[in-house]
Amino acid sequence: MILDLDPNLSDAQVEELCERLKRMKFTPVRQSGNRVALVQGVGKQVRKEAFLELSGVRKVSNLEQKFKLASREFHPQPTVIECKGKKIGGGQLFAIAGPCSIESKEQIFDCAKAAAASGAFALRGGAFKPRTSPYEFQGMGEEGLKLLRDAGEAYQLITVSEVMEPAQVGLAAGYVDILQVGSRNMQNFSLLKELGKVKNPILLKRGFSATYQDLLMAAEYILAHGNPNVILCERGIRTFETYTRNTLDLNAVCALRELTHLPIVVDPSHGTGIRSFVEPMSLAAVAAGADGLIIEIHPNPDRSLSDAQQTISFEAFAKIMHMAGLIRNALKNACESMIN
Amino acid sequence: MILDLDPNLSDAQVEELCERLKRMKFTPVRQSGNRVALVQGVGKQVRKEAFLELSGVRKVSNLEQKFKLASREFHPQPTVIECKGKKIGGGQLFAIAGPCSIESKEQIFDCAKAAAASGAFALRGGAFKPRTSPYEFQGMGEEGLKLLRDAGEAYQLITVSEVMEPAQVGLAAGYVDILQVGSRNMQNFSLLKELGKVKNPILLKRGFSATYQDLLMAAEYILAHGNPNVILCERGIRTFETYTRNTLDLNAVCALRELTHLPIVVDPSHGTGIRSFVEPMSLAAVAAGADGLIIEIHPNPDRSLSDAQQTISFEAFAKIMHMAGLIRNALKNACESMIN
Amino acid sequence: MILDLDPNLSDAQVEELCERLKRMKFTPVRQSGNRVALVQGVGKQVRKEAFLELSGVRKVSNLEQKFKLASREFHPQPTVIECKGKKIGGGQLFAIAGPCSIESKEQIFDCAKAAAASGAFALRGGAFKPRTSPYEFQGMGEEGLKLLRDAGEAYQLITVSEVMEPAQVGLAAGYVDILQVGSRNMQNFSLLKELGKVKNPILLKRGFSATYQDLLMAAEYILAHGNPNVILCERGIRTFETYTRNTLDLNAVCALRELTHLPIVVDPSHGTGIRSFVEPMSLAAVAAGADGLIIEIHPNPDRSLSDAQQTISFEAFAKIMHMAGLIRNALKNACESMIN
Amino acid sequence: MILDLDPNLSDAQVEELCERLKRMKFTPVRQSGNRVALVQGVGKQVRKEAFLELSGVRKVSNLEQKFKLASREFHPQPTVIECKGKKIGGGQLFAIAGPCSIESKEQIFDCAKAAAASGAFALRGGAFKPRTSPYEFQGMGEEGLKLLRDAGEAYQLITVSEVMEPAQVGLAAGYVDILQVGSRNMQNFSLLKELGKVKNPILLKRGFSATYQDLLMAAEYILAHGNPNVILCERGIRTFETYTRNTLDLNAVCALRELTHLPIVVDPSHGTGIRSFVEPMSLAAVAAGADGLIIEIHPNPDRSLSDAQQTISFEAFAKIMHMAGLIRNALKNACESMIN
Repeated sequence: MILDLDPNLSDAQVEELCERLKRMKFTPVRQSGNRVALVQGVGKQVRKEAFLELSGVRKVSNLEQKFKLASREFHPQPTVIECKGKKIGGGQLFAIAGPCSIESKEQIFDCAKAAAASGAFALRGGAFKPRTSPYEFQGMGEEGLKLLRDAGEAYQLITVSEVMEPAQVGLAAGYVDILQVGSRNMQNFSLLKELGKVKNPILLKRGFSATYQDLLMAAEYILAHGNPNVILCERGIRTFETYTRNTLDLNAVCALRELTHLPIVVDPSHGTGIRSFVEPMSLAAVAAGADGLIIEIHPNPDRSLSDAQQTISFEAFAKIMHMAGLIRNALKNACESMIN
Repeated sequence: MILDLDPNLSDAQVEELCERLKRMKFTPVRQSGNRVALVQGVGKQVRKEAFLELSGVRKVSNLEQKFKLASREFHPQPTVIECKGKKIGGGQLFAIAGPCSIESKEQIFDCAKAAAASGAFALRGGAFKPRTSPYEFQGMGEEGLKLLRDAGEAYQLITVSEVMEPAQVGLAAGYVDILQVGSRNMQNFSLLKELGKVKNPILLKRGFSATYQDLLMAAEYILAHGNPNVILCERGIRTFETYTRNTLDLNAVCALRELTHLPIVVDPSHGTGIRSFVEPMSLAAVAAGADGLIIEIHPNPDRSLSDAQQTISFEAFAKIMHMAGLIRNALKNACESMIN
Repeated sequence: MILDLDPNLSDAQVEELCERLKRMKFTPVRQSGNRVALVQGVGKQVRKEAFLELSGVRKVSNLEQKFKLASREFHPQPTVIECKGKKIGGGQLFAIAGPCSIESKEQIFDCAKAAAASGAFALRGGAFKPRTSPYEFQGMGEEGLKLLRDAGEAYQLITVSEVMEPAQVGLAAGYVDILQVGSRNMQNFSLLKELGKVKNPILLKRGFSATYQDLLMAAEYILAHGNPNVILCERGIRTFETYTRNTLDLNAVCALRELTHLPIVVDPSHGTGIRSFVEPMSLAAVAAGADGLIIEIHPNPDRSLSDAQQTISFEAFAKIMHMAGLIRNALKNACESMIN
Repeated sequence: MILDLDPNLSDAQVEELCERLKRMKFTPVRQSGNRVALVQGVGKQVRKEAFLELSGVRKVSNLEQKFKLASREFHPQPTVIECKGKKIGGGQLFAIAGPCSIESKEQIFDCAKAAAASGAFALRGGAFKPRTSPYEFQGMGEEGLKLLRDAGEAYQLITVSEVMEPAQVGLAAGYVDILQVGSRNMQNFSLLKELGKVKNPILLKRGFSATYQDLLMAAEYILAHGNPNVILCERGIRTFETYTRNTLDLNAVCALRELTHLPIVVDPSHGTGIRSFVEPMSLAAVAAGADGLIIEIHPNPDRSLSDAQQTISFEAFAKIMHMAGLIRNALKNACESMIN
């Protein structure tokens, strides 16, 4: 339920109203523009009119979507997340690059240098790896997180790494700027709840068979538990096609743009699983309106300990960033010339 | 099997060799550069060495893919189809626009005028409609084909229309430049064989659950029966997602580019089923490297007799064409600056 | 729309009413119990009350489903199709067996003998084969149909064979009892319309990505064009799983039972593509309530010219028929003991 | 890798060999019949012949499948798990029944009574609920586990309940016999590792888009971390069909039977999501050869706090158990009569 308040209400008055709502056993969530969402509990019957009797409430409306805080209905303006002086979702391309797994100091520093040189804002690297086989490399753990932090600091890059269980959240949050939820954990609700309690932005990857609504319901878990900084990531879905590892679904960019205010990045590396597809699908994602890209790079892609087939070289990444910039400029000019 | 011939062989000598192969019960298919493919019959056992004994044959190699004539292996250079002075696959954007169904003379002429004004090369319009319900509008039939031909002539546009059964092929080929095979008929092998016998280019739409290989095997039917002018069309696949009508699969552009020499166009109208998705997905298709687009337009989209929800206005189409041009220029400049 | 008529109306009176409806440009379809369905044309606006003014009409109701004649709403009792003294859908198991392709007189006669000996009612065999590759065996054509007819007569079996295009329908209908529409042609609307004009029962196979509604809309084409004898066939769908050729969907038996009155048979051979799965999935289909089975058998399964991997031996078929009988008896006894 | 040892080796000698292998940095897993599997670490290069030089080793062979301990290759005999005097996988039907969520003492005791009366061996009930919305009922937690334990004891039923995160495993293992991994957590590798450390049997539900291999790789995580008692559960996959909640995939029973020695149960409640489908799909699962069933029952299905649409009454469950027994007897008799 949304309560639209008297626009003349002071900040203190809004806070007072929220306190009152809490005493009535609701969970009020404030939004800019004197708007408050009430997230209802299970089985709670509420008479809409009752809220109109509260001082300062002008209008009461229902949220149609099952996802509430994540919806455009509740939050019409796009969310822009600030992190280390960079904006995610604010018009500039938010590119994240780095290796699938952190393998050594040299490797992650080389990647950081290349990422920064090409204009990426963030450095990714896996320390806890969700491998389908128990016999495969499971990541460097905390040691890897330290290397990632150091490489990020050396090149002034935001850092991104995955967490796989609630108990890792606190540890990782101490080293890394953005915490990533992997595709296989998108509906690990215990993990999502824990991520609702930290302040780090969360990069939430779409499950490989999750609908847009499933993804937004997963985001809702994080939002409802207190963390408003969720970045959505399209990373390919499972279809009947076997030529590609996954089917990167760029329709998701359009659909999520309509349904939610949260920023959207695209992962063409996992999304296709094929090195030669990373460039064209990156450019397509930018043309479709994605806010960012997350791309696997490696000093020597063929020697990557994981995901070698989809990892690209530093040169290939530089070329993508250059071309993506040209496309964004072309689209920007087109929009401006139409307005004039 | 591919026979690479002595490059000094004259045209007449190659023809003579082909005649000889026919007498040996093979179906030779000539390609530029003194190369001949032998399409084998069922159960035919061939000793590769036997061909080396034929005069003029330099090298004999197998084709790995199940699709032969459609493969890059057989035909490394991209196919460029010429039609009414325009090139399909030759670097320029081949845009097809028009209504889902031809409804009246006024409607199709209005669409033709708008299509031509925005730089489209071709006009589409359905006369025989494959509707999922027997109780829905089944198209104007031959009368529609005549209107389409007239509108195409008036605005110097190539015309495109769908055929649904072998018996319609001859009739439609008399009125229309490019014959379209709909998604539901992609594996209507009787129809494909018939289309192998005409000279018109064929626009072959991917079945909504066809793999890339399935699509290329369907193209192979047309090629093997004598018509080399096949244009492939990605138009969305069926997945678990229900928000969109189909999931437009732009990975297909990358995959088909690697696997085949045939031109590739993208249909964002059927591919998404949502009007607001047509622009961003058109631009994404162009950025991914598609040779063309096929888009449903209508003078009054909401009054369209079929597919209203995915049909766009003339203004929206003009904007897409303008923006697509900017993206293509940006990519072209990027490629050139890298070469220099 | 359904018109429920005065139960006292004579047959002649109902016919008179139907004639009158035809003059009003409707297509009335009679059903037992003085019920008439009106299948509406496109864009036809009808005032429901107008029909109540017709003499003899007691009640006018809408059909909710998009499929009308195929729906349980219109025809609550299960349809039982009679063919050569056997009943399809009437409680007995309707088993169809035979080779994928008719290869020779000996082969089809051997299959017929084995099918009859095990209690099958029908003999299948392909004469026109829809192969994904143009270079594979395309079937024996009319010669095959003659062999099938002869084998059927010799062992008093109903015959079943596939047609692929409208022009084959008349020919095949002269030789074969039940005409089959293959999975890839389920939405070949030209073919479906043609099959609406013959009297032979039609075995309509579900497209490998068709929803239950899609299948019933395809059946509706045949029904609406005049042929009420449609048998539905579940034959596996395309999913992400690659271990099996298709995913046989037995939920279809339950769903179609609720949605339609038409009989339902299951094809575990194509549905799984794996020989060892044919027995357990046949028994599962029977336990789920299927009206029949269609199974590929061959005198020497490994030498089958097509579909060898899913074809079973005569002995394996006999075992399935024996076990299926035991399951049906067990279920019948259970139902009877519960009634008593 | 599998080492087949001299059959005359004593237990102590085998243990000694295992100790030696551990010092060589391998993880040996013993199996009956003097067979030992060596689960290799990442990047470990092993010369097969080296093992033949170890005293007592007769034969060294590779395991082809990516899943090792879960494979039929490694463990040809079916695994039979014993729990509270009952056998899972040993020929008798292992039926689990109970409510989706534990709601009250009365509810769970009523269910236990009905389950026991119909011949079920186990009682299910959710205490920690993985709900797609953060605003829905999340389960009674530990209080629910106590009620489940008490109800199980009162009616001598094995108890089954879901755990969602590593930290819950110890707690739940103290109250419940079998720990369940839900579909959404099938690839929660942190959870799987933790479950490898307990002694309780684990009911591992297939992810709704997991291939058979994905499922077996998830089982491998539990096996490789020390717990050999894994029960696999087919519970429906996500397909393009929207009529059912999921598409229950009975082919899984056949496929898993070939690939693995682990017992297989089927969940027709979640697998279809439709109350009227539970009976026919339960019977189909039994006919296909499933070792067990897991079915949602409730004293008043329509009032169930979760999954009401797929929950059945006690009477409906009793009928299924009766009919399933008849089918199993029929199949048993058939097998015996064929042997004689």
